[in-house]
Amino acid sequence: MNAEDGKKPARKDPWDLPDIGELVVGVLGGTGDQGRGLAYRLARAGQKVVIGSRSAERAQAAAQELGAGVEGAENEECARRSDVVIVAVPWEGHGKTLEGLREALAGKLVVDCVNPLGFDKQGAYALTPEEGSAAQQAAALLPESRVTAAFHHLSAVLLQDPAVEEIDTDVMVLGDSRADTDVVQALAARIPGMRGVYAGRLRNAHQVESLVANLISVNRRYKAHAGLRVTDV
Amino acid sequence: MNAEDGKKPARKDPWDLPDIGELVVGVLGGTGDQGRGLAYRLARAGQKVVIGSRSAERAQAAAQELGAGVEGAENEECARRSDVVIVAVPWEGHGKTLEGLREALAGKLVVDCVNPLGFDKQGAYALTPEEGSAAQQAAALLPESRVTAAFHHLSAVLLQDPAVEEIDTDVMVLGDSRADTDVVQALAARIPGMRGVYAGRLRNAHQVESLVANLISVNRRYKAHAGLRVTDV
Repeated sequence: MNAEDGKKPARKDPWDLPDIGELVVGVLGGTGDQGRGLAYRLARAGQKVVIGSRSAERAQAAAQELGAGVEGAENEECARRSDVVIVAVPWEGHGKTLEGLREALAGKLVVDCVNPLGFDKQGAYALTPEEGSAAQQAAALLPESRVTAAFHHLSAVLLQDPAVEEIDTDVMVLGDSRADTDVVQALAARIPGMRGVYAGRLRNAHQVESLVANLISVNRRYKAHAGLRVTDV
Repeated sequence: MNAEDGKKPARKDPWDLPDIGELVVGVLGGTGDQGRGLAYRLARAGQKVVIGSRSAERAQAAAQELGAGVEGAENEECARRSDVVIVAVPWEGHGKTLEGLREALAGKLVVDCVNPLGFDKQGAYALTPEEGSAAQQAAALLPESRVTAAFHHLSAVLLQDPAVEEIDTDVMVLGDSRADTDVVQALAARIPGMRGVYAGRLRNAHQVESLVANLISVNRRYKAHAGLRVTDV
């Protein structure tokens, strides 16, 4: 309530996002295609990026290859050094990796971008984690972290291609705290062509993660690297 | 195989869609907001549309209101008279309605556009039907029909507003038969602004249906009528 006129304070502009230029971004699974692509795009946009891997040597080698000031470290050091930690590990190692990083990730803003998918001869299909989604699994395993979900629908091919200047897609950002989703939206907006769009609470992460199965079908039918735009926002 | 040169026949252009101008489209649940909106848009584009309701009188009254040659009938007659039948009933009545129309829908192309959602004070969330999705429930209940899924993400407000000339969105079309999904894509493309984009098999319908929960969050945050575009196709 505004004491002067009894009206509610003005609604916060959803595009008024924080300055995140100084935050260090870690990428767990940063030697995989998705992690490497995200690290490259964020570093190229000027963000300080540390990629993590189970092996410090592999992380450092991948970082060297990426350039743009990217550094490499073992997962735990990557987590400790970062303000925001993107989880881009394969779904198969998701739970186990996070379990082992619980302390290192305490207090951190975690951005889960893992898509639990199965594959058979008919293509990709959604897996349903016991917790509801990969992001909810992360939240369950990391009670002292602030868990969000984003960056699910990006083409690793486009992310990694230095000739691609802009990536024509929105990033759906999910989370239960506005301050946290605002940071992740701002991070997405660092990458030319992208916007971060708030798309609901963590309990609605499963369908966003699973939609990658549909995008794989789209890519196959149209020989494309499909992304998604949210219209009218 | 092409006998002449031993090469595979040319891949079919995914945008080469059939002419569906002569097909009669039924809309079950055509007196609800979504059904009414879809009926209006398709009829306005020149398609012959029959809306169905449990009560013939209510269907006829709604049809009269919509104009554009829309007719109204009891659900069973609506199904029998139509070549393509859009299912736009509330999720709560979905299974029961379809069970009762099994014979009337035999041989028909069924397009399920139902979103199984729950609502509480935090907003909308996905429900998971026993069969996996509303569309898979339809397929289980209608073994003699050809079941597809589409038209999930449309704003009923925009659909029903005669002042809105174009709707800026793609329609994700799911199904296991290319001939059927091609027809549904062509139907979506009748509505100015829309494209029908193939987005996978029926087993990947759940996340497309559930994503409406996320779009509701988007609409609330951005005061929008959000839709989705698939980029790079």
